[in-house]
Amino acid sequence: MAVRALVWGENVHEQTNPTVREIYPDGLHGMIAAQLGQDPDITAETATLQDPEHGLTQKRLEQTDVLFWWGHAAHGEVADEVVDRVALEVWRGLGLVVLHSGHFSKIFRRLMGTPCALHWREAGERERIWTVNPGHEIARDIPRSFTVENAEMYGEPFTVPEPLETVFVSWFQGGEVFRSGLTWRRGAGKIFYFRPGHETYPVYHNETVGQVLRNAAKWGRNPARLKSDIIEALQVSLEDTPEKIEVRGPKLHEEGEKGLR
Amino acid sequence: MAVRALVWGENVHEQTNPTVREIYPDGLHGMIAAQLGQDPDITAETATLQDPEHGLTQKRLEQTDVLFWWGHAAHGEVADEVVDRVALEVWRGLGLVVLHSGHFSKIFRRLMGTPCALHWREAGERERIWTVNPGHEIARDIPRSFTVENAEMYGEPFTVPEPLETVFVSWFQGGEVFRSGLTWRRGAGKIFYFRPGHETYPVYHNETVGQVLRNAAKWGRNPARLKSDIIEALQVSLEDTPEKIEVRGPKLHEEGEKGLR
Amino acid sequence: MAVRALVWGENVHEQTNPTVREIYPDGLHGMIAAQLGQDPDITAETATLQDPEHGLTQKRLEQTDVLFWWGHAAHGEVADEVVDRVALEVWRGLGLVVLHSGHFSKIFRRLMGTPCALHWREAGERERIWTVNPGHEIARDIPRSFTVENAEMYGEPFTVPEPLETVFVSWFQGGEVFRSGLTWRRGAGKIFYFRPGHETYPVYHNETVGQVLRNAAKWGRNPARLKSDIIEALQVSLEDTPEKIEVRGPKLHEEGEKGLR
Amino acid sequence: MAVRALVWGENVHEQTNPTVREIYPDGLHGMIAAQLGQDPDITAETATLQDPEHGLTQKRLEQTDVLFWWGHAAHGEVADEVVDRVALEVWRGLGLVVLHSGHFSKIFRRLMGTPCALHWREAGERERIWTVNPGHEIARDIPRSFTVENAEMYGEPFTVPEPLETVFVSWFQGGEVFRSGLTWRRGAGKIFYFRPGHETYPVYHNETVGQVLRNAAKWGRNPARLKSDIIEALQVSLEDTPEKIEVRGPKLHEEGEKGLR
Repeated sequence: MAVRALVWGENVHEQTNPTVREIYPDGLHGMIAAQLGQDPDITAETATLQDPEHGLTQKRLEQTDVLFWWGHAAHGEVADEVVDRVALEVWRGLGLVVLHSGHFSKIFRRLMGTPCALHWREAGERERIWTVNPGHEIARDIPRSFTVENAEMYGEPFTVPEPLETVFVSWFQGGEVFRSGLTWRRGAGKIFYFRPGHETYPVYHNETVGQVLRNAAKWGRNPARLKSDIIEALQVSLEDTPEKIEVRGPKLHEEGEKGLR
Repeated sequence: MAVRALVWGENVHEQTNPTVREIYPDGLHGMIAAQLGQDPDITAETATLQDPEHGLTQKRLEQTDVLFWWGHAAHGEVADEVVDRVALEVWRGLGLVVLHSGHFSKIFRRLMGTPCALHWREAGERERIWTVNPGHEIARDIPRSFTVENAEMYGEPFTVPEPLETVFVSWFQGGEVFRSGLTWRRGAGKIFYFRPGHETYPVYHNETVGQVLRNAAKWGRNPARLKSDIIEALQVSLEDTPEKIEVRGPKLHEEGEKGLR
Repeated sequence: MAVRALVWGENVHEQTNPTVREIYPDGLHGMIAAQLGQDPDITAETATLQDPEHGLTQKRLEQTDVLFWWGHAAHGEVADEVVDRVALEVWRGLGLVVLHSGHFSKIFRRLMGTPCALHWREAGERERIWTVNPGHEIARDIPRSFTVENAEMYGEPFTVPEPLETVFVSWFQGGEVFRSGLTWRRGAGKIFYFRPGHETYPVYHNETVGQVLRNAAKWGRNPARLKSDIIEALQVSLEDTPEKIEVRGPKLHEEGEKGLR
Repeated sequence: MAVRALVWGENVHEQTNPTVREIYPDGLHGMIAAQLGQDPDITAETATLQDPEHGLTQKRLEQTDVLFWWGHAAHGEVADEVVDRVALEVWRGLGLVVLHSGHFSKIFRRLMGTPCALHWREAGERERIWTVNPGHEIARDIPRSFTVENAEMYGEPFTVPEPLETVFVSWFQGGEVFRSGLTWRRGAGKIFYFRPGHETYPVYHNETVGQVLRNAAKWGRNPARLKSDIIEALQVSLEDTPEKIEVRGPKLHEEGEKGLR
């Protein structure tokens, strides 16, 4: 069964900046979806900030395996309610691939618990991405290194939690480095941050970048989705207690009571 | 120089429940502070929900090395502004020790990025805490296992991110297990979650529990505190670029501009 | 394409102990292979210590996706040359599932870099295995907990490196706990240690145990296999250097020379 | 109490290569020890390959908090018995700092369980080391980046296990990157790999490099040392079993027997 990818784009610079529109006439989300769709085992749809509920209804999220997130200018316009919904779906098993300037998106910062800050410079310099974990699923068919000729630089420190695994590290012409491909798990959901990408350069036309995105879609799928009560603290009754015990000592809570929060 | 610990307690059940008041006449925060103060290399103060700004002013946080967090009934009453302030201080280097029911505190969930849920049962059953990482600083002088005779059970899954290290795992008489001592780093701040503790049992009178708390205070201190601009995405000017480069291609941003967020 | 599993068994107690032979008439390796083979997407073969080269020739390892390892009485009889060969294949991408007493196998200790010791007791007591990472691929379709009525106890500390992820933790009737399901990556190879299993109890007849094994086979497959020169330190010639540079300063090595080791 | 550092050097190129001798007249080990000794809270001694037992007797290791390892040309000449001894002491709590070409030392490969390979080029190019984890103890007082003007390049992939934390990442003039500061724990021992350093360049004269070494010495000390039986699988007798149980089912082992290995 094909991986069901959904590419979310804020779709702002595409509407306001002629350079961006020229490079990405179907939007960045459109281009990313086209890259994903090159693989017959992936189906890729899109959703944007301007859609009702930003195109991220509960039903649609439940029909999605991996959500790709592109945002830059309008992080603050994403409704908190939708962010809560996406976070819960990630905890239940939705894969999430956060791209480039998405490092400052509400959903990424919510799931990381850190500032997700970095240093940056927009000078069209050369970036060379190195594969530091060549056996990782996301690095399949990716060479030892590949180049993006015009890139916006992101520099360390990148204030995210220590990842489960570091897959890519970037070299920049101006002298900086950046951990460009990092993975985490939050609940049942697998998260991948991938640095390359900028509106004014054709980064998402790059075939190797496309291959990374396709690999990430396949890696990020979790066929199982946990129940939505995973956010609750459930009381175990004496009856359901695995080994027979008897209550001892004073109590704060009643049998059957919901926990405090 | 002594570790400056600050024990925060919500101080609610101590005021409303005679059993709790009897076991902890100085409050749970008072008892925890007393345990910490047994070590001449630790100074321990307290702060409570009822204090102005919950006793957690910017100045006080800056004069604290490690913050201990006890809360249960009133997580929702902690002001978001104070939570933001504590989170930033953790990212800058404040140590944080979250105790027992603090798993559902705003600050812990904010820093973890997950539900932090679990199963529970209040039956006064026996808990045996096993040291799985005996070389860890927090396990110093802690035996291979120790017992809390009356405990509230917490059962897995505990929906937190995979920790940096697992230090303790608990066995419960009723048949459950729980990862009772877990560490993470968020920014420059070291975080330790420690499960034992419940209002209606004298868990914090236990000397081994006290030793864990004292160890955690020493482990959690980070003498350096990062600058508060670590939450910003700072632009690197061409002048400050390590290797000389020239701008190529179109641009979204102006030199000197603040980044989008 | 089906996962190609190979189950290696030392096949010693099956030959010498009537109880073991009765429970596992086809050997433990035979039973484990039978469990794996229940899934149409897995093909399972077996190899034993007594086979030429222990049944682990280079060719066979290259035709294997995931190697399951059962050993207990004869760890020392496994040829170092075969251990070297398996280690290299793991680094290249072979999955490895180490079972129960395999914690002391040469291959596991080689790949972990630690003693891999633990405490144990053979009393036929009850073990309850808890799923602490319910979203993990290896936990698919596994309930929140399941029971092995007669088990050999393994107790903490289990002296292995901190895992990538903890999937299962066991509770024992006698009062101990154990991290029963742990994952690591070594090179391109995914490694899973799974505790349940003992020769004198029918643990591998248990259907839930079987489901964990099948899940592990699917999780452990890495379709790519790295080149065997991954153990070499390769010199990068000036010609192959990505950015043009000139040699400066004194040198120890000649262009084209192999590195020291 | 001061950290007791011991700097081990193979002391080969210093004897055979005039350039090396000129830069490091007291040997690389001597220079490294001098850097450490700048801190009044560190005492630094040296040992070399040529000393009896390579200067690494059991007694001396037990009187050492952190062992620094410099080797390059003579990894194969280090006696396996000494490697075994050092490994056991690390598991018991000895800190270990492995420098530069020590990536291929027997002790490092033993403790990592991976090839520890990389790419390299000796061209005297510029290296810029970036602090990616500025709150880490090893990064204290280290700037956001610093430069080594003449360096031997090490390039990814560096085939080590995923670290506990990544502290430094290097940028090279020729276009490569390398994870230059990585931490692990093996047993009770803290391990730090630090890349900078080469015999024909005065890298260890660099003050910032020296500060990293001093920080690593302080970070790596574990005041506790586990018992040497941590490599054994100890049987728990019925008498010592925490909860009362009775033996059920058939047995392979006798009460009091040592485990198989």
